[in-house]
Amino acid sequence: MGANYISQAVIKRLPRYVRFLSELKAEGIDRISSKELSERMQVTASQIRQDLNHFGGFGQQGYGYNVSNLINEIGKILGLDQAHNLVVIGAGNLGRALAGYSNFESRGLYIRALFDVAPEKTVREVRGLKVYGMDRLPEYLRSHDIDIAVLTIPKEQVRQVAQQLYDEGIRGFWNFAHVDLELPDDAVVENVHLSESLMQLTYYMKHQKYSEETDGC
Amino acid sequence: MGANYISQAVIKRLPRYVRFLSELKAEGIDRISSKELSERMQVTASQIRQDLNHFGGFGQQGYGYNVSNLINEIGKILGLDQAHNLVVIGAGNLGRALAGYSNFESRGLYIRALFDVAPEKTVREVRGLKVYGMDRLPEYLRSHDIDIAVLTIPKEQVRQVAQQLYDEGIRGFWNFAHVDLELPDDAVVENVHLSESLMQLTYYMKHQKYSEETDGC
Repeated sequence: MGANYISQAVIKRLPRYVRFLSELKAEGIDRISSKELSERMQVTASQIRQDLNHFGGFGQQGYGYNVSNLINEIGKILGLDQAHNLVVIGAGNLGRALAGYSNFESRGLYIRALFDVAPEKTVREVRGLKVYGMDRLPEYLRSHDIDIAVLTIPKEQVRQVAQQLYDEGIRGFWNFAHVDLELPDDAVVENVHLSESLMQLTYYMKHQKYSEETDGC
Repeated sequence: MGANYISQAVIKRLPRYVRFLSELKAEGIDRISSKELSERMQVTASQIRQDLNHFGGFGQQGYGYNVSNLINEIGKILGLDQAHNLVVIGAGNLGRALAGYSNFESRGLYIRALFDVAPEKTVREVRGLKVYGMDRLPEYLRSHDIDIAVLTIPKEQVRQVAQQLYDEGIRGFWNFAHVDLELPDDAVVENVHLSESLMQLTYYMKHQKYSEETDGC
């Protein structure tokens, strides 16, 4: 269905569709026109039609979009039709915050455990999840079906740890450390460099561009 | 200097230049050619020249870029030539994680205090910063020169709190709540919707596109 040739801009918008459609579903709304969806999402209706046409449409003339169906179809595109199991590396404030995000699970994204160099100095459990020492990591990865590592450790350690995770078979990396990773081409890395996001805010404050244009991540 | 007509893609790259250039500076490197910078940042040299030409160049033929000068010039564009004072609303794990980021201060971004609905239930201080009750917020904002609010509270409360902050004069909002804010046009909002970033990761894992293309925020 040509999903490999979609621009990055479209891909960035897809999770936003999932979020808005899930809210509609939670409100008991079964179907919606592109016009109504556009008002809610504050993008143009033609943008919505154009975005969703990349994936074969899903809408029916005069009916609009079936909300549940559209969530499922976009979910498939986003790889959410299969469950993902995550470990969080680093059990500091950020790692604990991410481990506590309940809405990941509704997308089939399950955080299974946390790891920290000094688990005894932090906590042994975060919302029912175990915090293990880093020395337990290789054994844990060999006995559990983990595909994504969330990296919330300092930048000085992150490259070495990422390589270790890669060597143990992890291919998905959600990286919060303030450094780009250097991994083989079959690793997929999504970086969240928070201070870069904050600098975009100060840019738009200085230049007075408005919120709809700064919708960052 | 035409900075108002720069594409969002260029603006998104500017903080990344600041990060790499600051690393060079920390290593004692005074100047760098666009070729060397491009190897380090893994973008093409022509991309770098093109990006920086938007702002009048800064490079000199045969000399390259003066690192400190370039950091300062990009910093000016990003609004970092003036200090910004921030408050964090929500002293949970995420709020505390952000309050602990030491590298914000090196960019002139100062977190001054945290606020929480139940400060007595969490902590009274985070790395030397006071955690106040939300009832203290109006008074605090009137007596301190705060221009950015960092929102790490649940989405059910965030719109009302954002409006309150706006009414007290705040115009910069760094929003981590999983909802779009509805504020007047002179408010600048940068959203960090973390689960959307994670869904981009699962997309690229499914479709096997590689890290350099998923460099998100």
